[in-house]
This record gives sequence, structure tokens and C-alpha cells, in this order.
Amino acid sequence: MENNIVIVGSGFAARQLVKTIRKLNKQVPVTLIAADNCVEYNKPDLSHVFSLKQSADDLTRQSAEQFAEENNLRIYANTSVTTIDRPAKQIVCGDLRISYQKLVLATGAHPIVPSIPGSDLIITFNSQDEYRRYQARLQSANRVMVLGAGLIGSELAMDLQRSGKQVILVDRAHSILPLLMPVELSSRLTHKFSQTGIQLALNNELTSVKETADGISATLRNGYIAEVDAVIASIGLKPNIVLAAASGLEVQRGIRVNSQLQTSDTDIYALGDCAEVEGKVQSFLQPIQLGAMVLAKNLLGAEEKLLLPAMLVKVKTPDLPLFLAGETHRQDLNWDITLSQTGMVARGFDHLKQFRAFITSENHTSQAFTLLRELTL
Amino acid sequence: MENNIVIVGSGFAARQLVKTIRKLNKQVPVTLIAADNCVEYNKPDLSHVFSLKQSADDLTRQSAEQFAEENNLRIYANTSVTTIDRPAKQIVCGDLRISYQKLVLATGAHPIVPSIPGSDLIITFNSQDEYRRYQARLQSANRVMVLGAGLIGSELAMDLQRSGKQVILVDRAHSILPLLMPVELSSRLTHKFSQTGIQLALNNELTSVKETADGISATLRNGYIAEVDAVIASIGLKPNIVLAAASGLEVQRGIRVNSQLQTSDTDIYALGDCAEVEGKVQSFLQPIQLGAMVLAKNLLGAEEKLLLPAMLVKVKTPDLPLFLAGETHRQDLNWDITLSQTGMVARGFDHLKQFRAFITSENHTSQAFTLLRELTL
Repeated sequence: MENNIVIVGSGFAARQLVKTIRKLNKQVPVTLIAADNCVEYNKPDLSHVFSLKQSADDLTRQSAEQFAEENNLRIYANTSVTTIDRPAKQIVCGDLRISYQKLVLATGAHPIVPSIPGSDLIITFNSQDEYRRYQARLQSANRVMVLGAGLIGSELAMDLQRSGKQVILVDRAHSILPLLMPVELSSRLTHKFSQTGIQLALNNELTSVKETADGISATLRNGYIAEVDAVIASIGLKPNIVLAAASGLEVQRGIRVNSQLQTSDTDIYALGDCAEVEGKVQSFLQPIQLGAMVLAKNLLGAEEKLLLPAMLVKVKTPDLPLFLAGETHRQDLNWDITLSQTGMVARGFDHLKQFRAFITSENHTSQAFTLLRELTL
Repeated sequence: MENNIVIVGSGFAARQLVKTIRKLNKQVPVTLIAADNCVEYNKPDLSHVFSLKQSADDLTRQSAEQFAEENNLRIYANTSVTTIDRPAKQIVCGDLRISYQKLVLATGAHPIVPSIPGSDLIITFNSQDEYRRYQARLQSANRVMVLGAGLIGSELAMDLQRSGKQVILVDRAHSILPLLMPVELSSRLTHKFSQTGIQLALNNELTSVKETADGISATLRNGYIAEVDAVIASIGLKPNIVLAAASGLEVQRGIRVNSQLQTSDTDIYALGDCAEVEGKVQSFLQPIQLGAMVLAKNLLGAEEKLLLPAMLVKVKTPDLPLFLAGETHRQDLNWDITLSQTGMVARGFDHLKQFRAFITSENHTSQAFTLLRELTL
């Protein structure tokens, strides 16, 4: 059997892994199998396509052919994997069988859509393809409902509002960015949202949608009916684990891997949104980048472990940007906050007075880089 | 002409003034003219009548007769003043004329009701009499809309909620307590409101109400229609200045008085909610108490000026009480905040780093008394 690496997936994790492998080794055979057209784009750009008036195609950075050539790859684009024949160490795609020595699952995650009447009218917006599918409708929409006031939903709401649309932002939680920080620290952004005209519907949820002559009628739990042109769900991602589970790999929320990114099958690895690394699913770019570095080495024979440093999270809401890091979600931290008209700096300490988290905003975001080095890990 | 003092009004200001005069002088003739029954009650008690299940009569502390006897007064209850005959120095009440040497207007203020279709269905709640008028409806109401998320509206909303009613709190502002403090500092109480089940409708307003078979249908600016049993307006007070204005006294928002509490007529004074003391109308109890002390002396011949120290304001929301003082409303302060699960302490400094304002909550409210002494005036 040929000594080769097969990667299932074509998102950021898969591409980052390919590039990192090629930095270390130009010759090892690498094969990429992707269900989509395998075009490269920068996913975070989705957070500002409306205000920048970008089409889906504007996001394209590189075609599948260019990527294959540049990285000495074999690419199977638009190819769905049927199953993994683990005893034979082969990927089965219909009639096609591709042998692997090391297999990497980078199958990503898909956006969750609430199970409510009319949910097929709800748009998701987690890839260039999804944007391409809905861009005509979204670009012409004047009134947009965004479900989920987490990181992506908040960025999207502000981008839509900045592009001139009327936006209503809905979340079950009592505050925005509820999993990221306490209400006292998110309230500044909440206020900015309200001031700029974004309508907030917190402690609320969408209960049904239906098509009308004029658009979409969206009913909330409190009885409010919003007449909108589009409803976008950004209430979370669900790791794509069907293939792994069907192949008998251990899965929980994601595909379970150890700190070497190895699944319950020692020849199969997982990376990115689909992976649950020691109990945690992380869909930020930086952990994936670091994961790709460790995994590339391990695929080439090393046994490195993934150690994640404190990582900066940027909330890309240009009218009131937030940079944060550490355990900002902890309920038990004591916060020291300085607040002025030009922004805030909040530092969170545990009961031992160890510096565990920070959040900075606006003119003070640049302090984040210094604070990041001071965090207790 | 008899050397006598006539007071128009029977609220906290009038009563406090009577008591203070009598501490200084047992004999000077004092006459009280009141449009109501002149019963004494403690107005702040209105903020918790629902959770304590108190009726309007439960608030009564003293009858008009007891008050008159105890303070050696002549009281004209249920007597409306028609006009002031300033040249003759007489109060005219229909056919009755009452001479004064010194006159005090303590005519109070009345709650503002929004001018919208159906506004006669809106309840106000600023006196024992108003509570008496509406208590049957309010006590049996299950769903109550409160207009105005200022101090009184917030206290009322929490009290109604604690008594088991469904509450929706509406304000045009983007945050609660908008005139009192920045959103970062009110957000903790906003969150508590939401968590306890109070529905918040901020950046919104009531546009119409109408009676239905089942109660009241209340429509908000964003199109939301709330079906409720009662709507209470607590969007502010308007000083009662009609009598003063008709009598040719200088008025602006309130009856204009100098720091000696003297109107543009040197024999006429004003105290309490009706008075605008050097440009400011203050309806808290403490300034009225201090004003009564200064005015009692001045009525008896002194020429004292009212100097207001920093005063503690208590937001009586028992699930999350706030004590504050100083210029908490200033937009230009820099705030130092410590925040934990047990509450917060926020201190506001001006650009010269002078300590100008503070806000404390929950377990930390007791710090307010120390902080009050440290404030820069």
C-alpha cells in the first residue's frame, strides 16, 4: 500500500493542514476529497459582505485546480464519501475506492436551524456556498431577522444594519453574547445595537415562519409578529459526525480525538469544526491553525500534543469592536473594569486573584495584546 | 393683618414644613389649604403595595383632624384654590377668602400621561388617592404594562412582578434608569428584570390603547400588541404651576424660586415637587426635607439659603437594590467598577480625577454610606 494521506473536507481545516504538510514535506502523496467545488475563500469575510457589497464570488481566493497544482495534491471535488472501509483502509465514494494510510476527517459542521413550522424558509450562512445560494434574496432584503446573538449573529446583525437594512436580532438568552461574557460587559454593545436601530428581541425566540405575498411573517414566543424579507439562523453549529459514527469511530458532540488529534482508530484523525478535542469543540480559526501544525507533524511520524495558548477573540462589530481572551464566560470571576466614553477594559480574576480573562473595547482594544501575555493559563 | 403663614398643599412638602415650623415656633398661626382629604401617608410605600398586599387605606398614618390638633393648625380640606389675590394678600377659594402674610405653594406635581388614542384607560399611581381609585383593578390584574423605566417605573415593575403579575416594562430609551446611570451600570438590573420574567420593551413606546372584552389591548411602536389588564404611566411628573402662573408668578418647568425658596413675589414661597429651585426640579424626599428646614426658618424671619449635600438615592428593587449618589448621569465620567457575583461598586471620576458619583448594588450597598462622605461636591 502506498504511503499516503487522505483528507476528507475542503474547508479551512483541510486547507490549512495541506499547506502545513507541504511546508514539512513536498513529496508525501496527499489526496483531498470534497463534497463541494473546493474553491478557497476566507470564511471570516462572510461577516462583512453586506456592508462591503461583496458577492459570493468576490470572496474566492483560489480555484481547486490552482490549489491542487500549488500543493501537489490529488483533488476529488464534488465527491461525496459513502463510507470508510476501515479493515481495508479505504474511502468509499460510490463506485470509487481510495486507499489511505493515514486518514483525516475535516468534515466541518453545519448550522443548526430551529425545528419550527416553516423552518425551510430560514437561511443559513456559514459558507461561501450558502451565501451564493441566498445572496440574491439577502442583497435585496430590506428587513432581516437574525436568530442568535452570539459572535456570528452579532457580527452579522451589525453588518446587515450598516448596509442599510432593518434588522431584528432574536435570542433566547437575556443578553447578547451570552456564552462569551457577563451582561455588564456586553451591555455596551447591546446599547450600540439599539442606538444604531437594530431591534433586540432577547429572552424570546422564533416560534413559526410563513411566506406572505410580501415576504415572510415571523412570529416570536411573546406574540410579536415581524414582517421581514429574510430570516437567518446563527444559533450554533453541529459537527458533521455522521460518516465517523457510521464508520464506528467514537463520537460525542464531535468526532472524539485525543490531544494528538487521533480518533479511536489510530490511523484516523479529525481536525476543525467536526472534532471534539478532549471534550471541547472549538470553531475559531486559531485553534484549527495550531491543530493543523500538530497534526501535520503527527501524520509524518511525530507524536506531538496540541497545547492551546490563550487566544484572542475579536468581535468584528466595527461600530464597537471587542477583543477578548481567557475564561470570559466564567460566572465566578471578579471583574475590575475601567469604563470611559472611549471604551472599556475589563479584567477578570479568580478567587485566588489570578488573572483569568479580559475584555477590551473600542480605543482600548490594542491593550489586548499586552493583556494576552499576562493571562494565567 | 394677622401675622400668619398659609400653605397650599397637603403632600410631603406641606406636612414636613408644618412640622418643622412647629419645632421652631408653637404659636405662629399656620393654615393649610388642601384640595384633597389631607390624610397623611408615606408616599415611598406606594413602591411595594402589591408585594405587601396593602390597600390604599393601609398606608394611612394620620387623619387631617389628628394632624391639625397635633400641630395647632387650621386645615381647609377638600378646598380648591381659585386664585391668589396678591394685592390684597388673600387666597381665594370660591366665596372664601383667607388672608396671608407669608404664602407657601406646595402644590405638588401630577403624573404625565402620554397623549395617545385611548389614554383615558391609562392609570397613574403617584398618590394614595390615585391608588385608592384604581386598587380594585390593579389588585385583580394579572398582566400589567408599566410605561417608563425610570426610578418609579422600575420599582413598580419589580413590585408587580414579585406580587405574581405578568409585567411588561416599556421605555423610549435604550436602557432602564436612562437618566440616572450609564447602560453598563443599569444592565445588571435589566438582566435581573428579564430573569425574573419582566418583559422589556426598550427603544419602544405605547402608541394606542383600547378596551377589549378581556381587558386592554396596548399597541407599541414596533407593532407589538400586548393584551393586558392595566397600563400604568410612570413617565415623569409635571409640576402643578397653573395657580402660580395665573397669579403672575414666574414659572418655567416649575414655580421659580431662589435659594431662599422665594418666588418672584417676596411674600410667596414654593416647596416640593412644584418648585424649580435655581433651575432644578427635584422630587426626591431628602431635598424637600432640607428645603422645609430652610423655609421654616425663612418664614419666621431668617434669610437662609438651601444648600443640598450629596444625597443617597435608593432604587427599591429588592431582588437587586441599588444605592447611588452624585452626578451618576454624567456622560463624561470615567468609571472604576468592581463586579462580582455578590454585586458591584462603581465610582465615577471627572477629568480632574475628582470623585463625582457612585453606584453600589446588592451586598455592597452598605458601602454607599462611606462613599457618600468621600464625594466631591
